[in-house]
Amino acid sequence: MDCLPDAWILTIGNEVINGVITDSNRATIARELRSVGIAIAGMSSVGDDPDSIVNELRTAMEKASVTVVSGGLGPTEDDKTSASVASFLGVPLRMDDEQLARIEERFRRSNRPMSPTNVKQALLPESAVPIPNDYGTAPGFMIEKNGRLALFFPGVPRELVPMLRERGIPAIMEKIGPSRKFFATRTLNVYGLTESKLQEVLSDVSADEEDYHLAFLPSFPIIRLRMDAGALTQEEVIRRLDAKQEVLEDRLHENIISDDGRSMEAVVLRLLQAREQTLALAESITGGMIGEMLTRVPGSSRTFMGSIVSYSNEMKADLLGVSEKTLREHGAVSHRCAYEMAEGARQAGKADVGLSVTGIAGPDGGTAEKPVGTFVIGLATVEGTITRGFLLPGTREWVRTLAAMQTLDLLRRHLLGYRIHGSEEGIN
Amino acid sequence: MDCLPDAWILTIGNEVINGVITDSNRATIARELRSVGIAIAGMSSVGDDPDSIVNELRTAMEKASVTVVSGGLGPTEDDKTSASVASFLGVPLRMDDEQLARIEERFRRSNRPMSPTNVKQALLPESAVPIPNDYGTAPGFMIEKNGRLALFFPGVPRELVPMLRERGIPAIMEKIGPSRKFFATRTLNVYGLTESKLQEVLSDVSADEEDYHLAFLPSFPIIRLRMDAGALTQEEVIRRLDAKQEVLEDRLHENIISDDGRSMEAVVLRLLQAREQTLALAESITGGMIGEMLTRVPGSSRTFMGSIVSYSNEMKADLLGVSEKTLREHGAVSHRCAYEMAEGARQAGKADVGLSVTGIAGPDGGTAEKPVGTFVIGLATVEGTITRGFLLPGTREWVRTLAAMQTLDLLRRHLLGYRIHGSEEGIN
Repeated sequence: MDCLPDAWILTIGNEVINGVITDSNRATIARELRSVGIAIAGMSSVGDDPDSIVNELRTAMEKASVTVVSGGLGPTEDDKTSASVASFLGVPLRMDDEQLARIEERFRRSNRPMSPTNVKQALLPESAVPIPNDYGTAPGFMIEKNGRLALFFPGVPRELVPMLRERGIPAIMEKIGPSRKFFATRTLNVYGLTESKLQEVLSDVSADEEDYHLAFLPSFPIIRLRMDAGALTQEEVIRRLDAKQEVLEDRLHENIISDDGRSMEAVVLRLLQAREQTLALAESITGGMIGEMLTRVPGSSRTFMGSIVSYSNEMKADLLGVSEKTLREHGAVSHRCAYEMAEGARQAGKADVGLSVTGIAGPDGGTAEKPVGTFVIGLATVEGTITRGFLLPGTREWVRTLAAMQTLDLLRRHLLGYRIHGSEEGIN
Repeated sequence: MDCLPDAWILTIGNEVINGVITDSNRATIARELRSVGIAIAGMSSVGDDPDSIVNELRTAMEKASVTVVSGGLGPTEDDKTSASVASFLGVPLRMDDEQLARIEERFRRSNRPMSPTNVKQALLPESAVPIPNDYGTAPGFMIEKNGRLALFFPGVPRELVPMLRERGIPAIMEKIGPSRKFFATRTLNVYGLTESKLQEVLSDVSADEEDYHLAFLPSFPIIRLRMDAGALTQEEVIRRLDAKQEVLEDRLHENIISDDGRSMEAVVLRLLQAREQTLALAESITGGMIGEMLTRVPGSSRTFMGSIVSYSNEMKADLLGVSEKTLREHGAVSHRCAYEMAEGARQAGKADVGLSVTGIAGPDGGTAEKPVGTFVIGLATVEGTITRGFLLPGTREWVRTLAAMQTLDLLRRHLLGYRIHGSEEGIN
């Protein structure tokens, strides 16, 4: 085995190379391998064509100590990986009785009839070592040639991932010896800064170091900051991540939502729960998005009373008690309306906190005074009611998503005693 | 040029090979090339490392007539593509004054200061033909070696895609001559069948033919059926797709939601608009998801009055008029409650149609009688009120998404006069 256990990732499938699907297996395999210290030399993909498979496999095994392959092990005519590997090795296919028995047992347990094509899945290249599949019918297998390893897995992610983790990686580690380094990652969720602003703020602390990389992963409107670190012991990796996190917290304090992957909505619910407070919403521009986000979190019903999605002015008046005068004189998108909506939500939901948002998502409905991207947030608590206006123009989906996140962030900042953004009068 | 214009796609970036991002450029490039009749031989990816780039580019240009490369043209130290290509060709880098002027102009127009690193982006391999970038700073370029072509684009999708479409593909077509075939795709959105059921129903009509492929693209809970066809003329491709669609419609009639990419919510809104009817919702289990879906569609405010997300029983009683007796004797998840919620929504929203859904999303809250995955839908119209019960167990997100889609589908079926699914009494 080479000193550096570099890996090449090869995915097989017509769907992949024709762009019909976005192949996520490559990234998954890369992350799994890197987590045990195996560096990735590169990746490639070819269609379900024997010549292409043989050529690409040959190239890959010349480039890296370990090649991890996914796809083409299904039961259909299209699946040509096993036969191609046999031809690459110059060996026949053989029926692996143990794998066949596993496939038969799988069909028996699920009470489904086994089709003759599934028998084909137990045909493996003669010299291959089977990798049993506890999650589906297609067994994987491992081959060795010129001191290089190649492992083959089915392309279905829910089979591939556990097979790779439970059987593939241990098999690789046994062959190539323990990796020399431990790798770990930690992700900070950041809200309220654009990607370029964030890069500017962190410009002097985001450079790569040996076995350290800080990745900016925008998942609009959240930016995930992923720290990827390696060291000689597991403890040292944790210490290294802790030190890096401290530096990032110094720069981004209030903009860091969580360091454990928790979403904005989960953070807000947790803060409310800690204070034994309940929440009710009045949503207009977001159409129910904030309620949907909060109720994604299991157990949210203890805290979240409900939302009045008052898209029409009648519903704003009838259910939230927004006055005709407010709608007539200030309009549905105004500080006054957001104020009355928040108080109306608090009252209608018999909740400790009432939160409202009203605005103009576009593409139509904007005016010179209140352009698309205008929204006003209201927050009603026992201490009183405040409103804040924003103008964040963009596409309909962009404005709505940002309005939802900004509304939750306003409540988060209120609960944590942080500074509240937005204008207190006018519209924005 | 070879007779068959096969292409290889090469993406460059450490983020790609380390699995930090899922590289969607490959699939995008593949679709763009195939749309003009260029077949894809395969794909590969390497990191931002000159040796890897040179090696992989050499291999790719041996394998295919055209290599399309993305990534590594940015302004930073990490971006090594141009220098690697120059070394591959054995030529120096030269400053392209025209491209430099374009970059300067771009910064001037946006009033941003240009950094010295951006000057680097105008350094191209001496023999390369520039591909101007109207969408960002990094110009692309094209090279020729041994009668093979390679085109280089920035990795940012919003720059790559229009550059490829507007400049790259025309340049390829000019070099390799017009493609011999036209390709087109059409997608049917299908709801209400599992993927395996769908495959079974279509088993005898889903086989590949020459230049025809039917792809099953599940996008839970919708399955997109993508027909991919090629023929010698554009008219012939359309005729071929029409004939194939007819066969699929014969099998799937009511389960086909749209043949133009339209979503369930857009279909339902269009049906209501055609009848000049308005809609109000009472959502419990879905927490606002249905309102959020409907309000994604621009102009939905003409039809959608609002939603009462009554997560608490108090809100069901106070705002929707669900009786204490119903909540006490039948519970919040019952036909009776869904019935009163639908009528309450219709009344509260002053709408023609009231639609409700109540259920148990889990992971907690299930009982033997009403397990997780139980939900009841109510539909109130001028003709009367109906309810339907379902039991579709799964994870919280799965149950909620399915409850939302099933609720909209019930209304779709009602409006189109199709059969309505679900049980009329008991819970499910």
